[in-house]
Amino acid sequence: MKSNLLSNISNPADLRLLDETQLPQLAKELRDFIIDIVSVKEGHLGASLGVVELTIALHYVFNTPDDLLVWDVGHQAYGHKILTERRENFDTNRQLGGISGFPKRSESIYDTFGVGHSSTSISAALGMAIASQLKGETNKQHIAVIGDASIASGMAFEGLNHAGVTDANLLVILNDNAIGIDPSVGALKKYLTAVKEGKNPKKNNMIKSLNFDYSGPIDGHDLPTLIKELNRLKNIKGPKFLHIVTTKGKGLQQAEENQVKYHAPGKFDASTGEIHLKSEENLPPKYQDVFGLTILDLARKNKKIIGITPAMPSGSSLKFMMDEIPERAFDVGIAEQHAVTLAAGMATQGMIVYCNIYSTFLQRAYDQVIHDVALQNLPVIFCLDRAGLVGEDGATHHGVYDIAYLRCIPNLIIYAPINEIALQNILYTAQSGLDHPIAIRYPRGRGVLPRWEVENFGHYENVKIGQANCLKKGTKTAVLSTGTIGNNVIDALNECSNADAIAHYDFPFIKPLDINLLKEIFTTFDTIFTIEDGTINGGFGSSILEFAASNNFSNPVKILGIPDTFIEHGTVLQLQQLCKIDVKNLSKLFSNH
Amino acid sequence: MKSNLLSNISNPADLRLLDETQLPQLAKELRDFIIDIVSVKEGHLGASLGVVELTIALHYVFNTPDDLLVWDVGHQAYGHKILTERRENFDTNRQLGGISGFPKRSESIYDTFGVGHSSTSISAALGMAIASQLKGETNKQHIAVIGDASIASGMAFEGLNHAGVTDANLLVILNDNAIGIDPSVGALKKYLTAVKEGKNPKKNNMIKSLNFDYSGPIDGHDLPTLIKELNRLKNIKGPKFLHIVTTKGKGLQQAEENQVKYHAPGKFDASTGEIHLKSEENLPPKYQDVFGLTILDLARKNKKIIGITPAMPSGSSLKFMMDEIPERAFDVGIAEQHAVTLAAGMATQGMIVYCNIYSTFLQRAYDQVIHDVALQNLPVIFCLDRAGLVGEDGATHHGVYDIAYLRCIPNLIIYAPINEIALQNILYTAQSGLDHPIAIRYPRGRGVLPRWEVENFGHYENVKIGQANCLKKGTKTAVLSTGTIGNNVIDALNECSNADAIAHYDFPFIKPLDINLLKEIFTTFDTIFTIEDGTINGGFGSSILEFAASNNFSNPVKILGIPDTFIEHGTVLQLQQLCKIDVKNLSKLFSNH
Repeated sequence: MKSNLLSNISNPADLRLLDETQLPQLAKELRDFIIDIVSVKEGHLGASLGVVELTIALHYVFNTPDDLLVWDVGHQAYGHKILTERRENFDTNRQLGGISGFPKRSESIYDTFGVGHSSTSISAALGMAIASQLKGETNKQHIAVIGDASIASGMAFEGLNHAGVTDANLLVILNDNAIGIDPSVGALKKYLTAVKEGKNPKKNNMIKSLNFDYSGPIDGHDLPTLIKELNRLKNIKGPKFLHIVTTKGKGLQQAEENQVKYHAPGKFDASTGEIHLKSEENLPPKYQDVFGLTILDLARKNKKIIGITPAMPSGSSLKFMMDEIPERAFDVGIAEQHAVTLAAGMATQGMIVYCNIYSTFLQRAYDQVIHDVALQNLPVIFCLDRAGLVGEDGATHHGVYDIAYLRCIPNLIIYAPINEIALQNILYTAQSGLDHPIAIRYPRGRGVLPRWEVENFGHYENVKIGQANCLKKGTKTAVLSTGTIGNNVIDALNECSNADAIAHYDFPFIKPLDINLLKEIFTTFDTIFTIEDGTINGGFGSSILEFAASNNFSNPVKILGIPDTFIEHGTVLQLQQLCKIDVKNLSKLFSNH
Repeated sequence: MKSNLLSNISNPADLRLLDETQLPQLAKELRDFIIDIVSVKEGHLGASLGVVELTIALHYVFNTPDDLLVWDVGHQAYGHKILTERRENFDTNRQLGGISGFPKRSESIYDTFGVGHSSTSISAALGMAIASQLKGETNKQHIAVIGDASIASGMAFEGLNHAGVTDANLLVILNDNAIGIDPSVGALKKYLTAVKEGKNPKKNNMIKSLNFDYSGPIDGHDLPTLIKELNRLKNIKGPKFLHIVTTKGKGLQQAEENQVKYHAPGKFDASTGEIHLKSEENLPPKYQDVFGLTILDLARKNKKIIGITPAMPSGSSLKFMMDEIPERAFDVGIAEQHAVTLAAGMATQGMIVYCNIYSTFLQRAYDQVIHDVALQNLPVIFCLDRAGLVGEDGATHHGVYDIAYLRCIPNLIIYAPINEIALQNILYTAQSGLDHPIAIRYPRGRGVLPRWEVENFGHYENVKIGQANCLKKGTKTAVLSTGTIGNNVIDALNECSNADAIAHYDFPFIKPLDINLLKEIFTTFDTIFTIEDGTINGGFGSSILEFAASNNFSNPVKILGIPDTFIEHGTVLQLQQLCKIDVKNLSKLFSNH
């Protein structure tokens, strides 16, 4: 009988009424529930399946929400959400207006800290633990659950390093499954593997060096052992560290066997695990694949080319190069800061380094971009995947700040291709000896040219640095777009009755601007629109205003882009509609000009 | 006889002609040379005195500049500069047009990597080492010298974690003197201390866990031992780690005994070490002390107040609170990312957290500001000391990007006080229940109110969020300033013949802007000037342009601030002159309006 126990549990208090012997049955039901919903509604699968037992054990042993539980990254928190008052609306996961795919404070009192980016949990939970100490709440428990990929990031080390000299009531649980989205890397991973295999004496391990009470490794799918150990740790004061070993995708055979693919598999058959393949014929390529195929092609011909990704070989498609030229393609783990400065070090020795980091994650290496790359004018090539609105991953992941935060950095070129060919050509141009570092931002998802691979792949043209292009002539109004949002402008103008009056210019170079063309535009047209899939504050439109002010133009300029608010999750189209930069809204707006 | 050996050495090739037995004499001369110059010209003293022997040994053993040497932070590299072709102009150190106080690629081929911010050296040197490997330069050596405060930063851990799984020819030298600018903190420091005291078995230490060949600890002032060990390590391939123990300030008794004060002591007597005290009577207070005294005063009355600094207790003056209320004032070490998310965690539990980070170092926690604080709208109070031009520390340290990189973040209030009273009042206002996080940016150095402490300290007034102020009326032109640069405007207008025509408005709130007052200003005045000590690109002026564009104003707006180039070192006045935002240039500019 399906969901017998689970259907009676709406919160952890209900869970705690169960007998411990019933918990394995609940685990099975919870796992089935996750598989059933995610197979239809999509989302992150493998991570949540891996922590089903841990999730149950934590809420069973600890007094949530009074005890404070922080999930690192949070894509493993589906079980947590289901057990904490969100079973009923779990099928709205990641949809516009539905629950978030990550823990979120505004959604539930059980979500003590909003997450999405990795490696924040130890710092956050320590902050909570110190606050509790100061408030005299000495029995309150504070738990951070962090994976082995996330704990290798510098920020997690900083948290451990501080926690180790406090007597704060903090429990760090290392969920060691040897994989993040892609398999974990680095010396720490190697060390943890040795610990698991019994090759390192536990009595003097690295975590103990940081002054933690270390226990483990234990089997994270063994509920009685987990519960016993958590109960023991609950009564130990000060910083504690529990090392558990789990299998990502546990309980669904294909997900266990193909952990990368089943991280977020899309729709699949809940009983067989078979992924529903969409026909990809005649679909445009993903931008990540344009990057991945192009860098591989270029690297075959140019021995100086190096690729770097911080833990996103699959997501960035650097994997193509890693498979064929492993000695020049590096996954450095969740270590954006290191990735950027490593690239800078390589660039000093004449290497041509493509450092591929999602726009939202480059926020983690901002100082390194300024201090180690731009200040020394090293020609590192930043490839910012997932720039702009990313859709269902929501507020934590939108890459909408990059134009604003990069535009103030001297020496840096900023480029946003309008389509696959433009991306390919700038990747080609970047390796032929730029005098400056460059940031190339392109979005999540597919391009606009179905036959790019067949017709254009490998046919490179040099891009002239700083050059903007007229895509369509007009008489009264000029629309200046940067990046792929320009395709919305193209479509909108096709729908406009007064399209003849409206010119469209593509400004792939946000910096340096095409000053000569701008002067012509401001002299020719009455009104100027700018559009970007980045923040209005300080973005591309803002740079056009700066141009106009310093060149004494007083044409009205209307800036379209992301407003000054955090945009939540939904499809990219829905979110563009919210920001009024979708085709329909643009078409309506232009029709009134 | 003074400087007998040193005066004949202009580069390391000369050094290598010496017999090893002469090196202790050279060390003495080099130390005296540093003391003689720094005592008169000022600069960083203690760190360079501590590595005199290491510097000599490195250049003696390794084949610099072919072998690549990276100094972490770099304020310890004075000896290195003197031995590498810069003895003759070492007296121009940190002066406008003179040599930089930090290693700098454009200054010398011996400066392989520009530094200033900490913890970059391992990543950079590893990048170089991997590049050498790919180029087949198998005998090339790559050395990172890093202190024990810097190696505790997350980025250094990321570098070690990667290096440990490569076979790159990298030597990491840990210069362990138990102090950064202030004494080192954290669990790693505790561990290193235990290692030095022989309490931890070397065979299984933390560094070995990361797959490094570990040796040490050895006495970093013992030249024969150093040279022998470096020669041995030169012949070992792969990642190596040498732990040396030194004394900061070595060779100058006062500097050894008072390491914090002698980090950068100002002018002092070269023979006695006595610091030349300037009369501080009737000088305005330092802004850092306004912060330090005010937070202490507020914290005495409000038990929820917490102070956090990443490794700058002296520089931020949080030290006052750390001394009196240690349980609520935290130095977390060089860990900006952790500092911000720790603050966020505390804020979730109702604590009022003042997180004090230099503007330039907040670049290291940019993602945490967005993702952990602003997105959750947690009312953390960021106190950004050293905002604007910082003077002699130069390009790596100017805090000129913060307005641009913070302005695109939703929910965040940004405030720049014009003087000590405004700073005090916003610190007071911030603890009385803001709905949003706030960033308060204020400069290095002294304020403008000599008797602030006597007349104003502790007399708080609530600041109305978003309110700008008219400082001076006018008829034709309005100058809008934000922050302490407004004092230059006040002085400039005092010198202007046509001052009657020019109004002056203080906009301490860069965000939210005082929209009503702006509408009045744009309606009343013809021309608008904006001025800030931040980048023109995307800064305060840019926000005024955005306001004007979205409200259909077409007044000419002239933006004054930091141009789109890296500003080097010099006095703040000299650098303001370069940017044309000093009193004289402003006065001239305003006189023509």
